[in-house]
Amino acid sequence: MNKLNDKNLVTGKLKLLRLGIDTYRENVAYLHRNCEVYRAEGFQALSKVMVCADGKHIVAVLNVVDDESIVGLDELALSEEAFEHLGLAEGQLVTVDHAQPPESMDAVRRKIAGQRLGKKDFYNIIRDITERRYSKAELSAFLVTTGQTDMDRDEVLYLTRAMSESGDQLNWNESLVADKHCIGGIPGNRTSMLVVPIVAAHGMLIPKTSSRAITSPAGTADTMEVLASVNLSINELHDIVRRQRGCMVWGGTARLSPADDIMISVERPLGIDSQGQMVASILSKKLAAGSRQLLIDIPTGPTAKIRHMHQAQRLRKLFEYVGDQLRIELEVVITDGRQPVGNGIGPVLEARDVMQVLQNDPMAPNDLRQKSLRLAGRILEFDPDVRGGDGFVMARDILDSGRALDKMNKIISDQGAADRVYELGRLTHDVLAQNEGTVTGIDNLQMARIARFAGAPMDKGAGVDLFKKLGDRVEKGEPLYRIYAEFPSDFKFSRALCNQNSGYSIGLQADIPQAFVEF
Amino acid sequence: MNKLNDKNLVTGKLKLLRLGIDTYRENVAYLHRNCEVYRAEGFQALSKVMVCADGKHIVAVLNVVDDESIVGLDELALSEEAFEHLGLAEGQLVTVDHAQPPESMDAVRRKIAGQRLGKKDFYNIIRDITERRYSKAELSAFLVTTGQTDMDRDEVLYLTRAMSESGDQLNWNESLVADKHCIGGIPGNRTSMLVVPIVAAHGMLIPKTSSRAITSPAGTADTMEVLASVNLSINELHDIVRRQRGCMVWGGTARLSPADDIMISVERPLGIDSQGQMVASILSKKLAAGSRQLLIDIPTGPTAKIRHMHQAQRLRKLFEYVGDQLRIELEVVITDGRQPVGNGIGPVLEARDVMQVLQNDPMAPNDLRQKSLRLAGRILEFDPDVRGGDGFVMARDILDSGRALDKMNKIISDQGAADRVYELGRLTHDVLAQNEGTVTGIDNLQMARIARFAGAPMDKGAGVDLFKKLGDRVEKGEPLYRIYAEFPSDFKFSRALCNQNSGYSIGLQADIPQAFVEF
Repeated sequence: MNKLNDKNLVTGKLKLLRLGIDTYRENVAYLHRNCEVYRAEGFQALSKVMVCADGKHIVAVLNVVDDESIVGLDELALSEEAFEHLGLAEGQLVTVDHAQPPESMDAVRRKIAGQRLGKKDFYNIIRDITERRYSKAELSAFLVTTGQTDMDRDEVLYLTRAMSESGDQLNWNESLVADKHCIGGIPGNRTSMLVVPIVAAHGMLIPKTSSRAITSPAGTADTMEVLASVNLSINELHDIVRRQRGCMVWGGTARLSPADDIMISVERPLGIDSQGQMVASILSKKLAAGSRQLLIDIPTGPTAKIRHMHQAQRLRKLFEYVGDQLRIELEVVITDGRQPVGNGIGPVLEARDVMQVLQNDPMAPNDLRQKSLRLAGRILEFDPDVRGGDGFVMARDILDSGRALDKMNKIISDQGAADRVYELGRLTHDVLAQNEGTVTGIDNLQMARIARFAGAPMDKGAGVDLFKKLGDRVEKGEPLYRIYAEFPSDFKFSRALCNQNSGYSIGLQADIPQAFVEF
Repeated sequence: MNKLNDKNLVTGKLKLLRLGIDTYRENVAYLHRNCEVYRAEGFQALSKVMVCADGKHIVAVLNVVDDESIVGLDELALSEEAFEHLGLAEGQLVTVDHAQPPESMDAVRRKIAGQRLGKKDFYNIIRDITERRYSKAELSAFLVTTGQTDMDRDEVLYLTRAMSESGDQLNWNESLVADKHCIGGIPGNRTSMLVVPIVAAHGMLIPKTSSRAITSPAGTADTMEVLASVNLSINELHDIVRRQRGCMVWGGTARLSPADDIMISVERPLGIDSQGQMVASILSKKLAAGSRQLLIDIPTGPTAKIRHMHQAQRLRKLFEYVGDQLRIELEVVITDGRQPVGNGIGPVLEARDVMQVLQNDPMAPNDLRQKSLRLAGRILEFDPDVRGGDGFVMARDILDSGRALDKMNKIISDQGAADRVYELGRLTHDVLAQNEGTVTGIDNLQMARIARFAGAPMDKGAGVDLFKKLGDRVEKGEPLYRIYAEFPSDFKFSRALCNQNSGYSIGLQADIPQAFVEF
C-alpha cells in the first residue's frame, strides 16, 4: 500500500486498479471503507457511483471493502468488465462522484404507473442500458414493467428500433440477405447448421451470426465451435460471406444490439420472457445484422416456450407487424416443439447429428433432417426466381447431392477448422426406463437442465444423447438416454437432477400429445 | 495458496473464506475461475449458487474471480454479510450447489401475468426474501409488479402480516402501547424526539424503535445517537421502557420485520414507492414492535412524498383498513409538508432543534414545537381517561413545565449518554439569495440531497441549517442557509449540488402554495 498522497486528497484522485472479479455484466467499483479521499458509506444510499477520468466515465455499483490487500486507501478498483468498459490503464488517476439514477428511469417509473411510452423514451432507456447506467435492479424494473402490462405493438416497434441502433449495424449491399431464427427452448434444435450450407450452396446470401447459450445447453455458436473458429472480426466475416455466401459465427464481436445482451443477462435468470421483449430482442439483432429476409421458427408444445397454438399465432402476428414496419421480409413457421430435435444435446453431440445429416449417414436423425429441409426450402423461396412450393425439393437435392456438405466444409475451412478434436465427456451414466410402454413425453426444459448441469455448453463434450423419442416403444430397464460429463462435480449435479425427474414420461400410445405443426 | 487436497476434490469441499467486501444486503459468493472442484462458469447461467455446510446453507450471487490472492483454487469466499448469515468459521469445509430460483418466484411471475396473490403466496415470498433467497433483480421484480398494478387492500393486508411475522415480535403486555410514524420525505421532521418524552411523561407506554436514514439525511435513530446510545439489546430496551415508559432506540437489533429492511434496500434506490408497499412496510414494523395505538403522519405538499390531498386521503383509508384488520387502533393525520420542519437538517442540527424545544428556548423553531404538540396531543387522546380535544393542552403543559425535558434526560441517561460531543462540521458555506423577495418554496428533496451530500447522516455534524422559511422576506445576498461538512470531498459534492439548484424559490407572497393541513 502506498502512502496517501496529500495532493490526491485535495484533488480527489484515486489510483485505478483492475480487480480480478467477473461480476457478470454489472459494473462494480470497490472502495475501501476508510478511503480518506471519499467516504464509501456516503455513497451507499443509492449504492451507485460514477468513476471519471480523462473525459471518460462509467457508472458502477459500489462495494465497500474492508481489506487493504484487495483495495488500498488511495485506490479505486473496478471489476473486470467495468475496467474494460472504462478503458484506462491501471494506476491512472480517477475521481469518484455521486451517480444520479439514469434519467430514463423516469420513463420506467411512468410505465410502472401505467403510462404508454413513446419512441424517445425507448431510445433514452436503451442508450442508458447500453452505457451500463442501469443496475441489475433497475434493469429488472424495466423488464418487469414492460413485460407485465406487455407493450402495445408500437412500443415493441420503438424498442426494437432503439435496440437495433444501440450498437454496430452491418450492411451487405444486396437485396437478398436471408436469415433464420428460432425463438428457442428446444434442445438439440441445430437446424441453422444445415440451413446455412444449403441456402449458401444455392447462392443466396445467409450471413448467420448467433449467440452463445445463456440458459440452454448449446447455442449455434457453441456447437459450430466444435468444428471451426467462430470468433471472427467484422472484416473476416465479410470476406468469408463474400466468398462462401454464408457463415456461422458468434455475433458477440460485432456488437449487434448490445443492449439485448445486457437485458438477457437479467431476463433469463428471472424467467420472465414477454412476447414483446422476445420480438424486440430477435428483430433488433437481425435488423442490426442487415437481414432483409427472415424466417422465424416458433416451436410449440407442452414444454416449449410457446405452449398453445393461440399464443403462437399471437406471437406470429406481432413478429409480422414489427417486421413489416422495419421493412424486413418476414415469414413465421410454427413447428412441432413437443420434444428435443435430433438425438444429441450439447455441442459435440449436436455437431455429430448435424454432420450425420450432411453426410447422408443412415444413422442421421430424421427429424432434424426433415425440419432443416423444410426451413431451408422456405428460405430458398424468398428468391424471386424460385417457384412457390419448389423450395423443399431444391433443398433436398442440395443436401442429397453432397453440395451442402461441400459448402459446410468450405465454410469450416474459411472460418478456420477447430485446432483440436473435442471428445465426449469421459463420465457416462445411462438413464433406464422404470417401466415398459411408449414414450409419451420428453420434457424440453428438464433435458436442457440435465445437459446443462452435466457441463454443457462450457464443456463441449458434455450433454445428453437420447436413445428414445416420442412414440418409441421401451422395455423396462432399457436405456432412455446417456449423460456425458467431464467433471465429477457436474456429473454428480446432473445425475442428482435426473434422479429427481428423468424428463421422460412412459405410457400408452394414445397419451402422446398432438403435434402443433403448421408446415 | 494451499495445494488442492485430493480428498476435497472427491467430496466437493472448499474452504470457507470471509472476504472483506460489503455488498450491501446481497449475498455474494466468490469462486476462482479455475477452481478444480467446481467450474465457476457452469453456475453462471443463473449466477446464483447455494453454499452448504453443517446443515446450514445460504443462497448467493456468484462472482467469478481470476486472482488467487483474492480466492484460492480450493476456497469459497463470501461477502461480509453473507458470511455472517451462514454463521460458520473460516476454514470450515463447504460444498457448492446449483441454486434453484426461489420457489415463490412462481407467484411473482403470476403477479406479473396479472393475477391476484393469496395469503400463502405472500408468506412464501416474504420467507424467501428474509432468507436472502432473492437476488436484487428478483426483489426488484417483486417490488415493481406489486407496485405497478398496486395490490388490492387484502393483498396489502397479507403482505403486512407476512412481513410482521418475518422476524421478532415484541409483546408489552399492556393495553395501551402507543407509537407514531411519519411516512417520511420531510427533512428535519424530528417530532418523535419530542412526542416520546411528552407521552412517556404522561405515563403512557411509547417504546419507539426507529430506523436509520437510508436515503434521507437523518433518521430518528441517527439523531438520537447524537445524545445517547441507540444500539440496545431487547432486554435493555424492555428495562428502560418499564422504567421510563418510553425510549428512542434503533430497531435494527430487534430484527423487527427484517424482510422490510431487505426490500427497502432495493426499493429506495429504484425510487419506486407504492402506497401498498408503504403501508405494509410501516404497519409490519409497528405490528412486530407490539404497537396497539398508532398515529400516522402524512405530510403533504408539492415536494413531499404525497403531493395531492386526494392521494393523502387514499393512503389514509388504506392505512385505516389494514390497521383495523390488524387490530391496531390507528389514527392518521395529514400535515403540512410544503417545507422542512424545524431549522436543522442533519443529526447534530436536528438534535439542537429538539433540545431547544424541550428547553423552551426562545430560539426554538416554533413549527417543530407546534407540530410535535399536536401529534403528542392526539396520542394522549388514545388514553380513555383523556377527554377528546384536551390532548394538545396537556401536551403543552408537559412541555412548558419542563417535565418533557426531565423525561428526555432520564431516557438519555438510561440508554447511556453519548460518550462524545458531536460538533458541527468544520467546513461551512453560506448559500445566498440571488434576488430579493419572499421565500415561496423550499424543495424538500433537494435540501435532503444537499445535506446528504454534505455527509449526513454518516457525519453527525454535517448538514444544512435553514435561516429562512416559507413566507420569510429576504434581501438579495442575504444567507438562506448554511452547509456544514467535515470532509473536503463531501463539501465539494454538496456545494456543486446547491450551485445546480439551491432548493429555494423566491418570489411574491401570493406565490406561496396553500398548505394541506387537516389538524
